[in-house]
Amino acid sequence: MKYFTNCDMTKISDSTIKRLSLYLRILEEFRTDERDTVSSDELAVKSGATSAQVRKDLSLFGSFGKRGLGYPVQELTTRIEQIMGLQRDYRVILIGAGKLGSALVQYPGFSQHGFRVVAAYDTAPDRVGCDLNGITIRSDSLLDEDLAREPADIAILTTPSEVAQAIADRIVALGISAILNFTNTKLTVPDGVSVKDVNMAVELEALSFAIRNRKDES
Amino acid sequence: MKYFTNCDMTKISDSTIKRLSLYLRILEEFRTDERDTVSSDELAVKSGATSAQVRKDLSLFGSFGKRGLGYPVQELTTRIEQIMGLQRDYRVILIGAGKLGSALVQYPGFSQHGFRVVAAYDTAPDRVGCDLNGITIRSDSLLDEDLAREPADIAILTTPSEVAQAIADRIVALGISAILNFTNTKLTVPDGVSVKDVNMAVELEALSFAIRNRKDES
Repeated sequence: MKYFTNCDMTKISDSTIKRLSLYLRILEEFRTDERDTVSSDELAVKSGATSAQVRKDLSLFGSFGKRGLGYPVQELTTRIEQIMGLQRDYRVILIGAGKLGSALVQYPGFSQHGFRVVAAYDTAPDRVGCDLNGITIRSDSLLDEDLAREPADIAILTTPSEVAQAIADRIVALGISAILNFTNTKLTVPDGVSVKDVNMAVELEALSFAIRNRKDES
Repeated sequence: MKYFTNCDMTKISDSTIKRLSLYLRILEEFRTDERDTVSSDELAVKSGATSAQVRKDLSLFGSFGKRGLGYPVQELTTRIEQIMGLQRDYRVILIGAGKLGSALVQYPGFSQHGFRVVAAYDTAPDRVGCDLNGITIRSDSLLDEDLAREPADIAILTTPSEVAQAIADRIVALGISAILNFTNTKLTVPDGVSVKDVNMAVELEALSFAIRNRKDES
């Protein structure tokens, strides 16, 4: 069943996609609280968007909210999950099982949202063989044969920055089509491969900038 | 010493600030490799920006790159660090010492960049008193007296989402002016307080969207 056949998905902006994810988080809370409907105003307040923006985003799915009653929580969840490709599980591998990588593997948020970490790889002999919440760290020399046997969709990259591009080239050649990049390297990948950067130094430095310039004002 | 007195800092966009952080990461590599100069083309290739964009960003600092020679690595680093407020250390507290929080405290990237995690707080009795790389987890009931005695600049929020707003209200009242928010809650804070959201589910879902829509094309 497709709800949005009239909509050209390539025209959906990154910021809309981000908001759809936020709406999903909010809808989760509503389901937990056993609420049946949600209004665009409630979604706006909790997501930090305007009501007009929420209504515009949800018009992607055609008109199904009822004036004065809002949107049915379960149906809206299903529609957003479908548009986001979340009605299936994704196989995720982790490359680089240092402190950050090891923590991420154990982060419950991944599997809760259908992103199943199926393997973790490292080069360090003292890490290979260690257990991370039921996942044994494997030598990165096994990457090629593992992915040939059981392809994965997404790689989480938590290697040192200087090897990140070489690893990215290698895993893309092995069929990985999406990378969550925690390194400092801006990766170059072929068309059709997606990369999302998560860089905590960048976020902290933006806070530092804000603190510095607020203090200058006073 | 101020290099950029002619520049209205409030007009610098978030995306420029993000690129300045990326340039710093690239300059770090250059220093490691003992390179003295860097060209705008090199910064562009490694940061994913255009050369014109790099030159525009760096013109914030006045003209000091030499045509054909590029920018002196050390001087450019110093100027960006100054504009970003990075020539001092920041006191950082962590609130919520679960798996993600515990991992973040031990993430070497924070202290390397001058963000010193000075304390970690949790409510769970089995966590309070545990040691995280030299930082003892403290009961969150001590937050008020600790911050009254020794103020902090930045809080990393890794609590459950449902308590995030209440905690944010409390720490803002205690003088915290910047929050790195790992929860799913869109925080409401007073003017003058900065929040940066890091939401791994949102990043993963954007990858899921990309995978889904690429597969639809074929």
